[in-house]
Amino acid sequence: MTDIDAVLARADANLPSSLDTLFELVRIKSISTDPAYRADCREAAAYLVRHLADIGFKASVRETDGNPVVVAHHEGMAPNCPHVLFYGHYDVQPVDPLELWTHDPFEPAIRDAGNGRKIITGRGTSDDKGQLLTFLEAVRAYKEVRGTLPIRLTVLFEGEEESGSPSLRPFLLANAEELRADFAMVCDTSMWDAETPAICASLRGLVGEEVIITAADRDLHSGGYGGAAANPIHILSDILAGLHDRTGAVTLPGFYDGVEEVPGAIKADWQRLEETSPGFLTDIGLSRLSGEQGRSRLELIWARPTAEINGISGGYAGDGFKTVIASKATAKVSFRLVGSQDPLKIRESFRAYSRSKVPEDCKVEFASHGASPGIQLPYDSPVLDKARAALSHEWPKPAIVVGGGGSIPVVGDFRSILGMDSLLTGFSLADDRVHSPNEKYDLASFHKGIRSWVRIIDAVGAK
Amino acid sequence: MTDIDAVLARADANLPSSLDTLFELVRIKSISTDPAYRADCREAAAYLVRHLADIGFKASVRETDGNPVVVAHHEGMAPNCPHVLFYGHYDVQPVDPLELWTHDPFEPAIRDAGNGRKIITGRGTSDDKGQLLTFLEAVRAYKEVRGTLPIRLTVLFEGEEESGSPSLRPFLLANAEELRADFAMVCDTSMWDAETPAICASLRGLVGEEVIITAADRDLHSGGYGGAAANPIHILSDILAGLHDRTGAVTLPGFYDGVEEVPGAIKADWQRLEETSPGFLTDIGLSRLSGEQGRSRLELIWARPTAEINGISGGYAGDGFKTVIASKATAKVSFRLVGSQDPLKIRESFRAYSRSKVPEDCKVEFASHGASPGIQLPYDSPVLDKARAALSHEWPKPAIVVGGGGSIPVVGDFRSILGMDSLLTGFSLADDRVHSPNEKYDLASFHKGIRSWVRIIDAVGAK
Repeated sequence: MTDIDAVLARADANLPSSLDTLFELVRIKSISTDPAYRADCREAAAYLVRHLADIGFKASVRETDGNPVVVAHHEGMAPNCPHVLFYGHYDVQPVDPLELWTHDPFEPAIRDAGNGRKIITGRGTSDDKGQLLTFLEAVRAYKEVRGTLPIRLTVLFEGEEESGSPSLRPFLLANAEELRADFAMVCDTSMWDAETPAICASLRGLVGEEVIITAADRDLHSGGYGGAAANPIHILSDILAGLHDRTGAVTLPGFYDGVEEVPGAIKADWQRLEETSPGFLTDIGLSRLSGEQGRSRLELIWARPTAEINGISGGYAGDGFKTVIASKATAKVSFRLVGSQDPLKIRESFRAYSRSKVPEDCKVEFASHGASPGIQLPYDSPVLDKARAALSHEWPKPAIVVGGGGSIPVVGDFRSILGMDSLLTGFSLADDRVHSPNEKYDLASFHKGIRSWVRIIDAVGAK
Repeated sequence: MTDIDAVLARADANLPSSLDTLFELVRIKSISTDPAYRADCREAAAYLVRHLADIGFKASVRETDGNPVVVAHHEGMAPNCPHVLFYGHYDVQPVDPLELWTHDPFEPAIRDAGNGRKIITGRGTSDDKGQLLTFLEAVRAYKEVRGTLPIRLTVLFEGEEESGSPSLRPFLLANAEELRADFAMVCDTSMWDAETPAICASLRGLVGEEVIITAADRDLHSGGYGGAAANPIHILSDILAGLHDRTGAVTLPGFYDGVEEVPGAIKADWQRLEETSPGFLTDIGLSRLSGEQGRSRLELIWARPTAEINGISGGYAGDGFKTVIASKATAKVSFRLVGSQDPLKIRESFRAYSRSKVPEDCKVEFASHGASPGIQLPYDSPVLDKARAALSHEWPKPAIVVGGGGSIPVVGDFRSILGMDSLLTGFSLADDRVHSPNEKYDLASFHKGIRSWVRIIDAVGAK
């Protein structure tokens, strides 16, 4: 174990200049979804390249069909150092409605939040400029004290995360050799609460399917045909109602292949976490867990697969009533996947099941809306262990391992294109108002975030 | 049995003047749905009052909030004569698109159809001016030969049938005493084919219900909540899929109370009829009967009750995909009723069943869209027997008793407001293009229709 107190002290001493860097970056209006800010996005990329070069990276702006990507490389202290790809994004969300901001979103400042906490206000302070700088400022402190890094480092910043990342996947495919590392680190997620850091070890994948049932070749009058002609909404309801059994489990053959139980220690952690957040259901007007019986709420969302109907339509849905038997009915169905569930097998199982429910004189068609597997950083991964211990040293409460109910496309792409697992941790808080007016980042998130990365880099680095 | 040959001969001799009357009535552009033709509608009512008065009725135009109603009375030959209310409508459908008419819709003429049949062309020749005149011209011939009528007769013509009859129900309620008779006769239906007359003895009633399921109080992201929060489309699918069992029968408790089997002789007739119309399903792109197993197609549509989903919506139904868990989902469900099924009991049974499927933290609401019972002229009714025999004497093939899958509101109102059964027969044909360009009425429908009513009036009248 190396003594990193000197590096942490340097990070503390650097805080004023780290804040200057953050403020300069936040002032650049890099709103990716609005073409009026394309030049600002380029400026943010150029700013980061200069900052990376100042730290000692070989950094460059790389063109794409959209906003440019920043790529930077830094050697490690030894040839056998772990090689890490660090990912962040320099683009931000739009700021409208501007009148709801109490301060200029592009004039960051440190303010007193009134609850004893100091906050940094401005668009992007949390998502993701402040977060990505926690990492860079940790690297800077480490480099300044030690003259070198214990890991080999590749940095990748994109400028289209807030507008669907259209250019990232082509860029990863075209530059896979250059970008591939032992694993990735991503700083775009949240703490559990202001005292408890979190590492997200799993993300659910997604299979999106549209199912379209056609019965008669035209809409029919229910007086003249009702009771004798097939009704596609009946067929569709039958398909959808049969997706779950009485225990809430999904009935598709082979659906649970590749789903593993979460280790008991993790489950116990989650049980404790649930007790600290009783409002999950009541905040949305509900009081009972749905889904698989006998599973806790966090397990259901983080570690169990689902079948959800996201939309349905057929027949007459306007005001009043129309006694029609529709020709067509359609539903959009999605499956959240975990572990090593195979998206293509699940799609085929759903399609075979649906076909089995459709009378031979009716037609069923499908449309695909994506298929990505779940992401799982193995619970026994040494990187996870080291990062968890490092974070637990920095914060008042031990770090916890959490999951994500949704997907983060870039993490899936790192897995599928670059063959890498990702370590996801971050220091934003639930009240950061990410994507909303009055976005902020706690000064403690920024400061202790930098210190956290110093510890993580040191822990996972060569000894 | 009276000898009615003289009356039939008079009807034959009257045909030229009967056609003159039809042509004069068709020339009046009594389109009820377009306010531009309000004066034409009044003119049609006035024309009919003059014609009724000429035959010997006490006839008058009666005001409503919309187009006027024609009411006329004629005494029968004896105080104990059966009292019949005859119903028809003098309004017609719009004629657009006018360019698709091969002849002026309001300049009727007798033309050669090219298949050996002569047809009368023009809007309303079939629906319903030609049909109602078959009855009046039969009455005229009868009166001219016998000087009296074997039935006491009340005539009711409305002028808003093609625009939803908004004024008829209030008029029936306000004039129930005046209009009540032993039974009604309605001439607004079709033959089975050009050689086979038909009496419609049953019409299915209708209960329309909208069911609205609310789960969370807002739309949710399926990543953050999927698998733990209730999905209203799942609940709705479960309700709807459970409405039918594997045999196609409706599962609601008490649903079949009041449903009686059709007499064997009628079933045998229907079996024969089905063999003459094999295209029922193939014409709409289907090949298998849906609904209750073990029932013939005509039985399913004419004599069996149904539960049909007429519309469904919830969540995202646009292009592409949205991983949303909707707050609400809604379906429109209708029940076609037969026999003495009680619409209100069926509504309550559906609501109780639906409530039983909804988790206690979710909400279910209902909206009513009408509730009317089925209509059944008893299969052993003497009037039905007599009319069937009378029609069988006139046409090449014996008359058959059919049902109607949909409702005819006025017939329901006659039942509920005036306490009367209705005898429904008519002489239009499937190719009359009712409601479409180039409406026509076969000359044989008009001529033999008049002769048919002579026979029916005589058969049901006092002997």
